Amino acid sequence: MKAVVLLSGGLDSTTTLAYALSQGYEVAALTVSYGQRHSRELASARAVAEHYGLKTHVVLDLDLSFLRNSALTSPDVEVPRRDTAEGIGEKIPVTYVPARNILMLSLAAGLCETVGGEAILIGANVVDYSGYPDCRPEFFKAFQEVLRVGTKSGVEGRPIRVETPILGMSKADIVRLARRLDAPLELTWSCYNGGEAACGHCESCILRRKGFEEAGEIDPVPYEVDK
Amino acid sequence: MKAVVLLSGGLDSTTTLAYALSQGYEVAALTVSYGQRHSRELASARAVAEHYGLKTHVVLDLDLSFLRNSALTSPDVEVPRRDTAEGIGEKIPVTYVPARNILMLSLAAGLCETVGGEAILIGANVVDYSGYPDCRPEFFKAFQEVLRVGTKSGVEGRPIRVETPILGMSKADIVRLARRLDAPLELTWSCYNGGEAACGHCESCILRRKGFEEAGEIDPVPYEVDK
Repeated sequence: MKAVVLLSGGLDSTTTLAYALSQGYEVAALTVSYGQRHSRELASARAVAEHYGLKTHVVLDLDLSFLRNSALTSPDVEVPRRDTAEGIGEKIPVTYVPARNILMLSLAAGLCETVGGEAILIGANVVDYSGYPDCRPEFFKAFQEVLRVGTKSGVEGRPIRVETPILGMSKADIVRLARRLDAPLELTWSCYNGGEAACGHCESCILRRKGFEEAGEIDPVPYEVDK
Repeated sequence: MKAVVLLSGGLDSTTTLAYALSQGYEVAALTVSYGQRHSRELASARAVAEHYGLKTHVVLDLDLSFLRNSALTSPDVEVPRRDTAEGIGEKIPVTYVPARNILMLSLAAGLCETVGGEAILIGANVVDYSGYPDCRPEFFKAFQEVLRVGTKSGVEGRPIRVETPILGMSKADIVRLARRLDAPLELTWSCYNGGEAACGHCESCILRRKGFEEAGEIDPVPYEVDK
């Protein structure tokens, strides 16, 4: 049985990939390079795919600079700097990319139909969603219906499943799961900013570090703030 | 009021654009160049956007060659040759591109949120759908729900509307509407194959020519078969 895993190269997607493989899926990974500031993730995605010896890893270049209001696609919008996780998730942040996960899932669905796969796995999670509307359970449920009525496989009675294995987990749970599955966390990159070391101050770094701390694990990735 | 129109440069999308403008929308057009064989359409899309003096026309390059089973994205799959419209729509054709309209609508939704628009217009139509699952009313309804629960505008209570003004029209009706709205049909391109003149034998040509014939109108586009 085949599945497509959306692999950004971060903690969550890498753990999701490790989970998919542990479930026996033959995985085709899809990485979308959408001009995000954290293009450092791309190198991580490639390293993770190589680590697992995946036969199919599609890396797609997609210029989303026309979505110019997001901090992740536009150089004109600053990635917010934080010191704690307080307030994260209370409202939709400027790192929201309009229709991002709809787009990611549509590309994954296209690849999944092409390789004859039966499921898409995405590492969305409720803690990490930080107020993103397209990381909520009701969004994935609605998208599942789109796949049922709007694709060849769906119309033929075998709709592609959308699986969100870490959706309800805390970051600490994700770190624990990753460790249990022996995921190559040293290869991952979660920071929204580029650079040699992770910044430690963006929402993504804050949430990741909190997760490792709560799980009692050492984060193998270097941080600027620890130097 | 602003809207995004998906503009391929064909008869249907050009008519949809003309309709959107007639409704008073300020239109941002989105053209996705996805390595389709009919990239000749791209020049048409630009010419149509220019004809209407649109301030925003985003042309997005997207390499969908990884969807390698479709005749519209892969050089290995032949565009079928037909002599009549008979049999079109009875089953899903090889020109089906997996998850194509999900992808198109997700990009349009992203642009729509970015420009503060309230609607997306797409020139899907039931005759033309030729068996495409993602041109059916139930697909658009399901996608509407995705926009309601999965986007910032949706969560904030003003979901982007998906409008399909020509969905139920015959090709002849579309030609008549286009003529009534004075759409620049001479600039459009519907043929799935490239070339100086339209082939006249692909599904898209067959349906278009039948539409003009039934509407009693002359198609201003030249065809190989008429030479």
